[in-house]
Order: sequence, then structure tokens, then C-alpha cells
Amino acid sequence: MTMKTFIAATILLAAPALAQPADRMATAAKLRDTALASNPAWPLLVDLTDSVGPRMAGTEAEARGRVWAKAAMQKLGLVNIREEAFPITLWQRGTESARVIGTNHPLVITALGNSGATPAAGITAPVACFDTLGALRAAPDTAVKGRIVFIDHRMTVTQDGSSYGVNGGVRRSGPAIAAQKGAAAVMIRSLGTDFHRNPHTGGTVFPAGTTPIAAVALALPDAELIGRLCKRGPVEVNLVSTPTSQPGQSANVSGEIPGSVPGEIVVMGGHLDSWDIGQGVFDDGAGVAITLAAAATIKASGQPPRRTIRVVLWGSEEIGLVGARAYAEAHKTENIVLAGESDFGADRVWRVESRVAAAGLPLMAEIAAVLAPLGVQPQPGNASGGGPDVGPLAALGAGVLELGQDGTRYFDLHHTPDDTLDKVDRAQLDQNVAAWTAAIWLAASDDRPLRTK
Amino acid sequence: MTMKTFIAATILLAAPALAQPADRMATAAKLRDTALASNPAWPLLVDLTDSVGPRMAGTEAEARGRVWAKAAMQKLGLVNIREEAFPITLWQRGTESARVIGTNHPLVITALGNSGATPAAGITAPVACFDTLGALRAAPDTAVKGRIVFIDHRMTVTQDGSSYGVNGGVRRSGPAIAAQKGAAAVMIRSLGTDFHRNPHTGGTVFPAGTTPIAAVALALPDAELIGRLCKRGPVEVNLVSTPTSQPGQSANVSGEIPGSVPGEIVVMGGHLDSWDIGQGVFDDGAGVAITLAAAATIKASGQPPRRTIRVVLWGSEEIGLVGARAYAEAHKTENIVLAGESDFGADRVWRVESRVAAAGLPLMAEIAAVLAPLGVQPQPGNASGGGPDVGPLAALGAGVLELGQDGTRYFDLHHTPDDTLDKVDRAQLDQNVAAWTAAIWLAASDDRPLRTK
Repeated sequence: MTMKTFIAATILLAAPALAQPADRMATAAKLRDTALASNPAWPLLVDLTDSVGPRMAGTEAEARGRVWAKAAMQKLGLVNIREEAFPITLWQRGTESARVIGTNHPLVITALGNSGATPAAGITAPVACFDTLGALRAAPDTAVKGRIVFIDHRMTVTQDGSSYGVNGGVRRSGPAIAAQKGAAAVMIRSLGTDFHRNPHTGGTVFPAGTTPIAAVALALPDAELIGRLCKRGPVEVNLVSTPTSQPGQSANVSGEIPGSVPGEIVVMGGHLDSWDIGQGVFDDGAGVAITLAAAATIKASGQPPRRTIRVVLWGSEEIGLVGARAYAEAHKTENIVLAGESDFGADRVWRVESRVAAAGLPLMAEIAAVLAPLGVQPQPGNASGGGPDVGPLAALGAGVLELGQDGTRYFDLHHTPDDTLDKVDRAQLDQNVAAWTAAIWLAASDDRPLRTK
Repeated sequence: MTMKTFIAATILLAAPALAQPADRMATAAKLRDTALASNPAWPLLVDLTDSVGPRMAGTEAEARGRVWAKAAMQKLGLVNIREEAFPITLWQRGTESARVIGTNHPLVITALGNSGATPAAGITAPVACFDTLGALRAAPDTAVKGRIVFIDHRMTVTQDGSSYGVNGGVRRSGPAIAAQKGAAAVMIRSLGTDFHRNPHTGGTVFPAGTTPIAAVALALPDAELIGRLCKRGPVEVNLVSTPTSQPGQSANVSGEIPGSVPGEIVVMGGHLDSWDIGQGVFDDGAGVAITLAAAATIKASGQPPRRTIRVVLWGSEEIGLVGARAYAEAHKTENIVLAGESDFGADRVWRVESRVAAAGLPLMAEIAAVLAPLGVQPQPGNASGGGPDVGPLAALGAGVLELGQDGTRYFDLHHTPDDTLDKVDRAQLDQNVAAWTAAIWLAASDDRPLRTK
């Protein structure tokens, strides 16, 4: 280094000049197009999927996922790579089978996370059929006691995923409601929008004081069958599901592109854990690969951001945002100005949402403008919830950036064995990387306040 | 009965007048439209599916299928209802699992019919990867011996199902070829066109002198995974599949609408057995329901046919046309002038084919004319093979009528857990019934020769 460049560098470090808005926009557009042309997420997603496999929270596979993530971060040039452990309850599925008594109809099922176990030989009991969660709530205990409750509650396709919010209670609360009424076990119609023989798992919740009972989801065709049989007359089912719970450990992984001004952090990421029955691609290998690829594109550009960009790969999301809560608690004193998660598959970003301080809204408009050529539209309202793992950070005041993905087919695949690599549309995956690259670079090259408290 | 009507009836029986061609065409068109409007197959298909369940050849479920079929025939007004037993080898799947060593990738598999067994703990061995059946054929024994052979042979979608013929050898012959080269076991890419986590089973053949080895099909996403892993480096798999074989029994079921002139028989039907992993709807509950519904429509019209119409519901088709062979042998002295099977799903008939005596070709043209308003086109050539179960009858000289169904999505569902009732498009199912009703009534109201020898 010559004295001249040393002085120039020193000045730059001492008082980093903020680039003009037009320059920032031009740089963001260039980064966006670089990302779009270089397809950096696909090899990461293939490698994570194939070399690690499904990554159930608390398992050795999730741990191998962290080893993979740290090596990937190092290779991509991130620094300050950290692994931060936290305790979890390790829930693992056991033997699973179900059949209709009197015919030889097998039922394709999957146990719900946190659910209880049947005896090894299963439970054989009459089925109490309910069309909706509301019907179960309204039923007298006598209609439920000792029975296998079947909840045929349906969800429909929504581009924004809102039907998951509206109908999610059937899985989260249905089993506990049935248990409180004395049910022997619970079968729900999978929270899903496909009609394949692939059931949708997911977490359920038994509040303190409610003893967990066996609870499974039926594949949609099997729910259709039970629904039809319920209309014909009495139905009896044998159900076997023998999961176990024990103390376990998980961890979050993070790595950074340091900003030129210390003390302001922009977080993006996905979650490393997945359900065990698929390959964890749409949920959420894609989010991991997309945000790592976005960071790598920024890093490779040689244009250091003003704010520190931190990629956080949360652990144990699926079993109840355990990693997200631990992360927020451990980092509550940091100045995380903005956080966003990619956790809605691998399909196209179609809108950009935020929840930031009013002073940050012009920045959000600039982000929307740079993403517009990707077919992304702004979502009015500044009331985004952000992805699931940013919720606890947002509750502490972090601004929220949400790049909303097209969820039209997300709940065909979500939490099923069908969440596999072949489902990924590479052009749409690339579009995600381009959107994150440009948006995060713009946010990190800015100095307007974003935190909401 | 008065003397006058007795005489009239006697004259009619002694010399049944053949209706004029234009009248026959008009009657056939009316029957076609009646069938289309009355949706008679759907309730039959629902009842068979739901009350019986999957009907694996030789099992108690197939026997319950026959009880169902005889009751349905009786209710629909068929007579001369018969059950004709024959011996089979009862093959039943056992425990099935597979996983990639070194990761926790489970593989979704299904054993192939007639395949051999691994030990209970399975076989753990390196995988020998072949892109095609031809590559396996060409490989030296040393590349195969002691390994788990993986054949990644692909098929594509064809409307007429011809890709099943072209590529079927991978399932039928691949395992035996691998066994002859010393393979420990075989995994094939499912013979299928979907990308869901539902493997395609089906029969394989080990010729005399070749000891059966374990042979399974991988779901397409799992075949994709193994294909990718093969390109990365050595792959090792643990494979468990413990099917059993023992002597068993199956049967064919038939019922008739007697013709006014004895001694000429027109056969239509489907097969009652199904694979065990689906609900046996597309293969072949639909064919059973369609042909029963067509017969019922003709019966209900009160217009007795000239030739006897016989609905034959074959047993044990899936494990090698055992019922079809037994049926042809038992009925070889009968004058079966025409035979057709509905065994290609529940989607629309798009073409009509035949293989009949030259004198019968004008009748086939009349059938094509009556089916044209249903969107059915004639297939030139008079060289139809007919459905699988009519093959042995055709070999003995029976004429063949084939109502070719649209197979575009057939091999998405064929032999998979995904062969379930929800996949049926009821409008297309109705169109099938209309086509069979009109075609079979025309053939049975005619007197032109159809047999080929």
C-alpha cells in the first residue's frame, strides 16, 4: 500500500461518505443483475440437500447442517462465523401406521411434532368425525371421550399464504382441544393444498396441564376417504404412533460482511432445521441458500456495506421458533436495525413489505423501485410481520423487511415427503437471490433509521 | 300370455329380425346419451373403492372384491353370474425401507411383485449406477457383483401409453439381468412420469433358473437423489425388503345380458385385483365400474341385444395376467366374437381401435361414427392389441375392440399410493361409460363376423 492509498483508506474509514441515492440505486441494480445472471443459490441448495439430508431439530443431521453452513460461510468470504447453542426438547417420530377396521384400507399418516404416543400395538377406537375445528370445539365431551377424533378441516390455496394463518389452528390447537375433551387420539386432514399421498406434518401444542395424546395428519386422499366413510356409517380405526421426547440441543449459526460503520446490523437468513420426512428444500434449504447467495454476491462485488450484513441461519424453527427466541434473547442489546427471513419456499418474490420507522419509508420505496424490474410490487401498510424467525427480533424493535414469495404451490409441498429438490424452479430461485441481494445492499448502504422502538 | 302373443314371441325367437342399420345407430346414440346423462359408474366406483379397499391378487381383499362384484351384477340385472377359481402364487410385500449410508436420507421405495427378499436387517452394499437398462446389459459382471444395482432408466409422457411398452423392460427384466450378473439387489427409477414421493410398483419376472433377488422401485425424487449422488462419488445404501411367496387362489367373475340368438358372445370388462399400495381406482376399479355401468345402461334400456353381452371381471391381472390366461383356457370352445377391456384409467376415450375380421370393419366404422360426438377418433390399421386381459382371448381368435383412453397422466398414478378416488374426473368417467355402452350395444346388435380365426 502506498502512502497515498493509505491516507485515502484512512479517511474513508474515519468518515465513510454515504454514496448519493442515485449511485446507491445504480449499484443495487447492478448487484441485482449480477445475482440474476450468476445463479449462486442452486449449487448451495444442491450441496446442502444432498450432502446433509433432512435436518430435524436437535438431531445429528441438524448438527451436520451447521458444519455445512459454517464451511459454506467461510468459503463465501463471511467472517465472525459463530455457532450459538441453546437447549430444546428433542421430539422424534417412532413407528407410524393406521388402518380402517373391516376393510384393508391403510391410511397414510405422519405424526405431528410434540404429539404423544399410542401403545406399541396402537389404539383401536371408533372415529368421531368433525368437519371443522369449530365443530370439535362445539361438541360435548361425550361425543369425543375415548374416540379417535378426526378433523376434516380444509384449507385452500392462497398466493400470500394467508390460508395457513386462518386454518393453522386445526393443527396447532386441534389435538389439545380433543385431548381436553377426553379423546383417545387425533387425526387431522393435513394442512395442505395438494391431493397426493404425502401427509403434512408440523408442530402441535399441548398447553401445560394437558397430557399430550397421539396426533397425526392424514394425507389428503386419506382424509377424503375417512370423510366419505364417516358419511356411510360408523368407522373404526387402528392407529399406531410412538414418538418420543427427550432433552436435546440445537444452535444458530451466523456470519458477517462487516460494515464500514460499526454498530448497525442488517440481518437476513433462513432456518437450517427441517422436518424429517422431506428433504428440507422448500422449507427451508431454499431460504438458507438464497440468503447465503445474496451475501456472497455482495461480498464478491468488493463494495463493503455501510452497515454490517449478518446472515443468521436459525436452528429449531419447526418445533416452535426455539432458535429465534434464543437468538433474540442473546442479541437483545445489539443494534439490529433491520431483519428479514426467506422462509416460504423457492418460488418468485412477488411483493415487498416492511415494518420500519417512518424515517425509513423512503428507503423502502427505493428498495421497491430496484426490485420492480423483477416483477416485485410494494405492499402498502408498513405492517409486515416478517418471516417467523424475525418475529422475536421485531418484537424487540428491529425493523422488518419481508420479500413475500408466491405461495401458490407452497402448501402442496410444505412439511411433506414431497419437499424435494426436483420441485425447485431455478429461474424463480435466481429471482429470489437477486431481490435479496439488491434489497439488503440498499438497506446496508443507507443510514436512515429503521428500528420501530 | 294369449295365444296371439305366444305366436308372435315364438316367431321372434325363431327368427330374430336384425334392426336396420340406421335404427341400430339411432338406438346406440340414444344409449350413449343416456349413459352420459345418468353418471352410473361413479357410485359403483365409490362403493368398490370405499367398501372393499385395495385388492391385491390372492388376498382376502380380492375375495371381498368378488363378493362385491357379484352383488353389483345382481343388482344391475345381469344373470348367469359366475365365479371361476384358479391357482396363483400369492406374493405379498413385507417390511420395506432404504437409506443412504453417511447421510440420513431415507429413500421412498416399493418392492416389485415377484421380487425376492433381503435379510431382515437388509443388505448394505455399494451402489452400481446405470443410466439405462442397456447400460446394465452391457456392463461386465465385475461391475455388478455384490452391489446394489441402480437403474435410472427414464420414461416420458405419451398419450397412448406407448412409453410404457418401450421402457417396461427396465422393471420386467432389469432385476433378472442384474441377478444373472451377481447383483445383491436392485433399485430402479420408478416407471412413472410424476415427481411425487410415491413409488410405482409392478411385476417383475425372474425366469426359471434365476434366483429372485430383492428388487424395488424408487420414487422419482429419490431416483433423482441417487442419480445426483452417483455423480458425486461412491454411494452406499442399506436396503430392506422382505416379501414372501406362497400358493394362493384367485378367481374371475362374470355376468351376462343374454342375447336373443344364443351362441355369440361379446365380452367387456376390467380387472378386479389391484396393487396393494393405492386404492385401485385408476387401475382398475374404473374399468370395473365403467363396464358394469355400460352393461347396466343397456340392461335398463329394455332392448335385449342380439348377441350375449358378458361382463368379465378378471382376477390377478397385476401379477402376470393369470386370470386372463385361466379365463381363455376355460372358455376356449365358446364363440366369443369380440372382447374389449377398460384398463387404462378413468380419463377420456380418445380413439377406437379394432382387430376384427374384414367383414366386421363396416361395423367398426359404425361404432366410430356413433362415438365421434364424444370426441373419439378412429385409429387406422385394424391391429389393436386390446387390453391386457383380452390378449389370451384374442390369441384364440376373438375379435378385439379397444377404446383407447387418454394416458397423459396415467403413469403419474399407475401402481402408486396416489391411485386414489380423488383423482377421478367424473365428466371423463361418464364419457367412458357412454363410449362403452354405445360400442358394445352396436357390436351385440349386429351379426357380421368379427373373429379373426
